[in-house]
Amino acid sequence: MIDLRSDTVTQPTAGMRRAMMAAPVGDDVLGDDPTVNALEAYVAELLDKEAAVYMPSGTMTNQVALRVHTQPSDEIILEAEAHIYYYEGGGPAALSGVSCRLLPGNGGVFSAAAVEQALRPQDPHFPQTRLVCVENTHNRSGGRIFPLETIQEIAEVCAQKNLRLHLDGARFWNACVATGISEADYAAPFDTLSVCFSKGLGAPVGSALVGSAEMMAKARRFRKLFGGGMRQAGIIAAGALYALEKQRDRLTEDHDNAQLLAQGLQSMGGVEIDLASVQTNIVNFDLPERSAAEVAKGLAQREVAVLATGPHRIRAVTNLMVSRVQIERVVEAIAQEVQ
Amino acid sequence: MIDLRSDTVTQPTAGMRRAMMAAPVGDDVLGDDPTVNALEAYVAELLDKEAAVYMPSGTMTNQVALRVHTQPSDEIILEAEAHIYYYEGGGPAALSGVSCRLLPGNGGVFSAAAVEQALRPQDPHFPQTRLVCVENTHNRSGGRIFPLETIQEIAEVCAQKNLRLHLDGARFWNACVATGISEADYAAPFDTLSVCFSKGLGAPVGSALVGSAEMMAKARRFRKLFGGGMRQAGIIAAGALYALEKQRDRLTEDHDNAQLLAQGLQSMGGVEIDLASVQTNIVNFDLPERSAAEVAKGLAQREVAVLATGPHRIRAVTNLMVSRVQIERVVEAIAQEVQ
Amino acid sequence: MIDLRSDTVTQPTAGMRRAMMAAPVGDDVLGDDPTVNALEAYVAELLDKEAAVYMPSGTMTNQVALRVHTQPSDEIILEAEAHIYYYEGGGPAALSGVSCRLLPGNGGVFSAAAVEQALRPQDPHFPQTRLVCVENTHNRSGGRIFPLETIQEIAEVCAQKNLRLHLDGARFWNACVATGISEADYAAPFDTLSVCFSKGLGAPVGSALVGSAEMMAKARRFRKLFGGGMRQAGIIAAGALYALEKQRDRLTEDHDNAQLLAQGLQSMGGVEIDLASVQTNIVNFDLPERSAAEVAKGLAQREVAVLATGPHRIRAVTNLMVSRVQIERVVEAIAQEVQ
Amino acid sequence: MIDLRSDTVTQPTAGMRRAMMAAPVGDDVLGDDPTVNALEAYVAELLDKEAAVYMPSGTMTNQVALRVHTQPSDEIILEAEAHIYYYEGGGPAALSGVSCRLLPGNGGVFSAAAVEQALRPQDPHFPQTRLVCVENTHNRSGGRIFPLETIQEIAEVCAQKNLRLHLDGARFWNACVATGISEADYAAPFDTLSVCFSKGLGAPVGSALVGSAEMMAKARRFRKLFGGGMRQAGIIAAGALYALEKQRDRLTEDHDNAQLLAQGLQSMGGVEIDLASVQTNIVNFDLPERSAAEVAKGLAQREVAVLATGPHRIRAVTNLMVSRVQIERVVEAIAQEVQ
Repeated sequence: MIDLRSDTVTQPTAGMRRAMMAAPVGDDVLGDDPTVNALEAYVAELLDKEAAVYMPSGTMTNQVALRVHTQPSDEIILEAEAHIYYYEGGGPAALSGVSCRLLPGNGGVFSAAAVEQALRPQDPHFPQTRLVCVENTHNRSGGRIFPLETIQEIAEVCAQKNLRLHLDGARFWNACVATGISEADYAAPFDTLSVCFSKGLGAPVGSALVGSAEMMAKARRFRKLFGGGMRQAGIIAAGALYALEKQRDRLTEDHDNAQLLAQGLQSMGGVEIDLASVQTNIVNFDLPERSAAEVAKGLAQREVAVLATGPHRIRAVTNLMVSRVQIERVVEAIAQEVQ
Repeated sequence: MIDLRSDTVTQPTAGMRRAMMAAPVGDDVLGDDPTVNALEAYVAELLDKEAAVYMPSGTMTNQVALRVHTQPSDEIILEAEAHIYYYEGGGPAALSGVSCRLLPGNGGVFSAAAVEQALRPQDPHFPQTRLVCVENTHNRSGGRIFPLETIQEIAEVCAQKNLRLHLDGARFWNACVATGISEADYAAPFDTLSVCFSKGLGAPVGSALVGSAEMMAKARRFRKLFGGGMRQAGIIAAGALYALEKQRDRLTEDHDNAQLLAQGLQSMGGVEIDLASVQTNIVNFDLPERSAAEVAKGLAQREVAVLATGPHRIRAVTNLMVSRVQIERVVEAIAQEVQ
Repeated sequence: MIDLRSDTVTQPTAGMRRAMMAAPVGDDVLGDDPTVNALEAYVAELLDKEAAVYMPSGTMTNQVALRVHTQPSDEIILEAEAHIYYYEGGGPAALSGVSCRLLPGNGGVFSAAAVEQALRPQDPHFPQTRLVCVENTHNRSGGRIFPLETIQEIAEVCAQKNLRLHLDGARFWNACVATGISEADYAAPFDTLSVCFSKGLGAPVGSALVGSAEMMAKARRFRKLFGGGMRQAGIIAAGALYALEKQRDRLTEDHDNAQLLAQGLQSMGGVEIDLASVQTNIVNFDLPERSAAEVAKGLAQREVAVLATGPHRIRAVTNLMVSRVQIERVVEAIAQEVQ
Repeated sequence: MIDLRSDTVTQPTAGMRRAMMAAPVGDDVLGDDPTVNALEAYVAELLDKEAAVYMPSGTMTNQVALRVHTQPSDEIILEAEAHIYYYEGGGPAALSGVSCRLLPGNGGVFSAAAVEQALRPQDPHFPQTRLVCVENTHNRSGGRIFPLETIQEIAEVCAQKNLRLHLDGARFWNACVATGISEADYAAPFDTLSVCFSKGLGAPVGSALVGSAEMMAKARRFRKLFGGGMRQAGIIAAGALYALEKQRDRLTEDHDNAQLLAQGLQSMGGVEIDLASVQTNIVNFDLPERSAAEVAKGLAQREVAVLATGPHRIRAVTNLMVSRVQIERVVEAIAQEVQ
């Protein structure tokens, strides 16, 4: 099976398994795990922030960030299909008691002006706006990149209006590799960033929240509260560290493969695809005359796994487990299935 | 000053004051207040439901209803500018831990099909949808009426999908009077309704939540939790009971006055108004070339109070304190101010 | 019926009804109610604090105070049977997400040393302590007085440890009248105080939260969130203002009546009472050989209402509705019932 | 260093590391991880329950259980120093909005009668009691065992009063090994159990919540919400599975070592120890004339790590990393340090 359902299906590589097995570990709740400590130091340095905290998931790093920045009855501003609002089980309301003020996005991107217009007057009828969240790359829009310049404009509004700025960077590494912008430059406008090791990077488990030492001390407290304090977590942190050091650059291969797939689809009858939307490792395409669910089933019989994400829409995510040659086979399989 | 800022500014009439002063009272926390009990019985009967609970505000009746119907991490469906989401301080998230799934409305109205499309798959990534909220009349849309037929279609979807249906009926009485539909018929599709006595009806304080005996027993518990258990509340309940019995029919006067005002505005240069939108006692109009805030200030000097609710939008709400003759004066004042 | 169940059963006096009837009112959500404003100013001045906010209940003023002082996952310190923990429906956890650290009390009183010992280490395993709550007089202990000197010692610990100090002053007026300490002196050590108008004072509805202007601005926001924003609340605020001005001094009569009742009980066979515990208007006594519930029933047939608050314990609360002569009759009735 | 601070410091054994290295893995959020699935099936079978859910910590399994069993404003009953209340960051209030009703314990044990007395009347003043939590073995009491018979009596009260019963079984395996009662028998009275793999068992990360299929479906939802959904979690689940299969029986060695240590301490001058309290792998002892913190420092210089848990109290926890011979050396070290 060529698995393109998500880049979360990536399996640890042999080198990564060796790194995990050899990892020195300790009780991380007591701060004694040298591998976790090394990972946190590495990530903080890479993003040029003071500190990082390792957690079991990107959902936890995002939701802990909300707890760090807000109080119940506050409001946060984010794009209408942001992962934090859309896919995290209602966490903003359930865990932090905050309302979501949703901005319509263009490929997940919104403007500084839109943020400014969404602010609430100072009046007990309204929640108080405290935080803006950006998602880069943007999952529901097919891995689109949020331009650094727009982020900087939003950060200026945040500075003026006393708002915090958080990045959901589940695929932050893809944005950096695709644009050539350094992690530190892309991270600079943000108070906190959530970055994941378990998607394109290929580590089995974990994400980090990154920011100032003071905010990370709070985050460590909320990590414990949410049940994210792990003991000898160095085992999995070793995988994350390996991924970061050895498997980050190769994300370009995923991006190249996504382009190859997109171009193969573009020339195919019965398939609609917006090439401009394919900016990283996610390829969304439409089959206006076919049921996406049926096509996905047919492809599965041809040993290709994809996700039907709409009545006529299919999502394919290139990843560590899938080679260029396999992508060529995927294009053939889709052509056979569709035509 | 002719005060058209809101129908919440209405003052108790002389008859109402006499009723309050003569009211027999008791400790309502112990269930001993005869006037509160009479009011609750009257409202329940009028809406043909099993029980009602008197509370200090419409915000409390709405937010208690959410607690009755949901659990934290659930999702509720409501119109994008619904009072419950927009004006209640972030209560759904802060008090009940629920997410808001916002539907775009047409004058506050949405369809059963839109509800169905907004439902989430059964998957731990998503909050679970539990409740649909309707607002009738709809405040932010200028007092528009939600058609009973559409409500009935939504109620069918709710029945199929195991969702509860709540009405924010802050101005429910206006909808009934304007359409001629009985309170019982308009209430029939709903599990719970919040109705207010302190707006057009003119009582000083209070709202009621109405529904089944079982739900109201829960509501009574949450009322106490939220701090809404009052002692000799019969004093103000007497005002509500008087309003309900004696001042409900006269809402037609407010509606007639709103029409008079709207027609006066329609013929005025520099003023834009959609007559079709004026269905009850709220008149929204636009001054495309003028600052609404400045016009509101100018009108205040002419002894007319209105609210600027947008850069060019003004809201005027007819109410118990304002006569037909005064509305004629308001039209003149606006004409002088605008031209 | 001579009603001694609680001082919450007090009914508005004729003078108070006249004051309510004549009260000028406005929309208090917009800050326009002159009577509410006058009440808030009066209370703030009396307690020598910057501001006060009128709310529909003491439960709301207490729970709003918790929201003002804490964030979810914080801990508050209070006596094991404090009203805030014991009788407010689980509000500290449900509304503010805070844990209660309960200190054993001696008649509701605890020491500064006990507060200090209850503080938690700085460690993610533990909630952070933010607030200490005192209750004066203490309801569950039979209206005992919390000595000012002990409060001052606790306030010193709070200052050293960066904790806030709140008073649940549902019967604060009784403590002042009984000790002769001025309201301002008794209030001085506290950041916020909740005071009630609907108990011994005899107003029909309402309480106030009192404190700094900044904290009260926050409190006003949370009052709206909890549903405590009322419209022409001046009607009931007028009752509270009247109670404060005209019915505060007469609390000494309730205290004298409680003494009379306690002394009558002391000499009675089959009755146990600790005279030292009767410090204000609450009289708790035990009938070791009788069922309290049965005795309460028997007394009801003799036109005396009391509450059975334990298997053998009865509570009687002297109040505005009960005269000295009636207390003498109560003593007789109990004597007949018990012997 | 001989590390007796806690059994959470245990490191993966060589065999366990090999098992982790070889583990087949998949995306557990999609239900695709064979090792996680195998672990969950094994635990459920061992405890004779329908299902289990693997999570990153015992704090998460406990707090998710609370979410499964309660709604905000409910109350739970547990012992005054229960880990769930004492060491989990205020989670019951912060994550579930529930109040804690604390029972005084005797070595962490409380009676069915005490549960019954703690129940609240049905009245809006009170939270509703929903859940009783037992901790076995009990951490703060030095690993004491909660007798099965007492648990069964509590379970009967729960059945009568419609309460759920949860076990915090962080050291459940120790209780089973020490008493010879089977896991299934000890688990039978409970609706849900939290069991840990990362303490005495020696796995690096993780716990499981165990119970009915319906409750575990809810738990899976809350795990995702809290951020406990991990991807290729089979890596660490393999360690847990290995621990369960190969390192469970050897807990008797820890218990024997604890006895050896306790007996060595008993005969030592200046040391007080209650032999009856040493029932599993935790040894608490007091040094009435010495500062525990200083003694701990002194022992550290002798290469023995313990925790000072009170001014004069020291805690030593025998574990997988410490042999019988080392325990003999520890006794010597303490003797030298103390005398």
